[in-house]
Amino acid sequence: MASVTVYGTPLSPAVSRVLACLFEKDVDFKLAPVDMAKGQHKSPDFLKLQPFGQVPAFQDELTTVFESRAICKYICKKYPEKGNQTLMGEGDGGLLARTSVDQWLEAEGQSFNPPSSALVFQLAFAPMFGFKQDPAAIEQNEAKLANVLDVYDQRLGESKFLAGDDFTLADLAHLPNGHILVSKNENLFMSRKNVGRWWEEISARPAWKKVVEMQNAPQG
Amino acid sequence: MASVTVYGTPLSPAVSRVLACLFEKDVDFKLAPVDMAKGQHKSPDFLKLQPFGQVPAFQDELTTVFESRAICKYICKKYPEKGNQTLMGEGDGGLLARTSVDQWLEAEGQSFNPPSSALVFQLAFAPMFGFKQDPAAIEQNEAKLANVLDVYDQRLGESKFLAGDDFTLADLAHLPNGHILVSKNENLFMSRKNVGRWWEEISARPAWKKVVEMQNAPQG
Repeated sequence: MASVTVYGTPLSPAVSRVLACLFEKDVDFKLAPVDMAKGQHKSPDFLKLQPFGQVPAFQDELTTVFESRAICKYICKKYPEKGNQTLMGEGDGGLLARTSVDQWLEAEGQSFNPPSSALVFQLAFAPMFGFKQDPAAIEQNEAKLANVLDVYDQRLGESKFLAGDDFTLADLAHLPNGHILVSKNENLFMSRKNVGRWWEEISARPAWKKVVEMQNAPQG
Repeated sequence: MASVTVYGTPLSPAVSRVLACLFEKDVDFKLAPVDMAKGQHKSPDFLKLQPFGQVPAFQDELTTVFESRAICKYICKKYPEKGNQTLMGEGDGGLLARTSVDQWLEAEGQSFNPPSSALVFQLAFAPMFGFKQDPAAIEQNEAKLANVLDVYDQRLGESKFLAGDDFTLADLAHLPNGHILVSKNENLFMSRKNVGRWWEEISARPAWKKVVEMQNAPQG
């Protein structure tokens, strides 16, 4: 039986980031739905797992962890011998390789995530849940994201993946928002030669395809 | 001679986060000013150090690192034997202690930093640089930050510091924005019993006091 439980829906970008990591690491898990429409994410039991009342929550036997990027690091450190073994730069590159993953994963969290999350809300979730779209917010965040992607395009002209020659958590963390954005405005990624080449490669990984299958399945 | 160079001004929250870590670790460094008014942070030479054109940039001999939280982790890993040796949970707590630091450092980056940075801009930098303050943005971000600090207050009722019994990077990362916010609206932190106790303790650390001295000195 799987010792790992992920609480949340695969439609949530932060949940799907953790699922992608679990599939890369070939770690068994079960998914426990959280009924956010009924406020289950704000219930006392859920808040014990995730004090901010957000998905995902994550449990591995008696250990609970929150924040999707911290959960991914935990999975890599707890199961070093399983699946993909270079997600945190654990190869031969030593401290420099591990630091490169840290630095590009921080760039994702601090530079890519804010405008891309705002756009995911505006372009995908607002129409889905009947909120009015805000054209000024779309324009402003597309401009911010374009600047970030310009930096990525230069970086990805120098190395195959963001942190170096290996696919790592720094790339993986971009998959959830990237997947939604490419489905709404493919040009944002594909008009940039190196970003386009990188996106084709990372989004075709079997681990990510399994996440997309879960997203496309009827939600229980 | 110091092998470490930090590029930027101690008045920048991200720069002062790195300086606090260097003082905690007792690692010598030199500070190289970046003339942002003259656009030096967008010059080709600076962009080689920091591709997003932001401060700080960081160099240690031939190694360059960007993103303040990634730089702090690099410093801890590169100089494990120097200064404070439990900033990343390196004590006896094993993977759980290190994961707790990761998770609360991510909470800082994802939950505390966005509203606190918006407030730092509105309350401190906008008046300083002659921008008009936006009362709606202040109100909205104070409400968001209050929710985050409520979660912190509960957590800090259970443990001395955010990640556990030791002061770690997860606490340190809050010092730059916290320092400015407490100077503008003390009540936000001090009206919460456990957050107030925690703030008094972490802001009194000698390493942080050295950063504040640098901030208060005439800027070259």
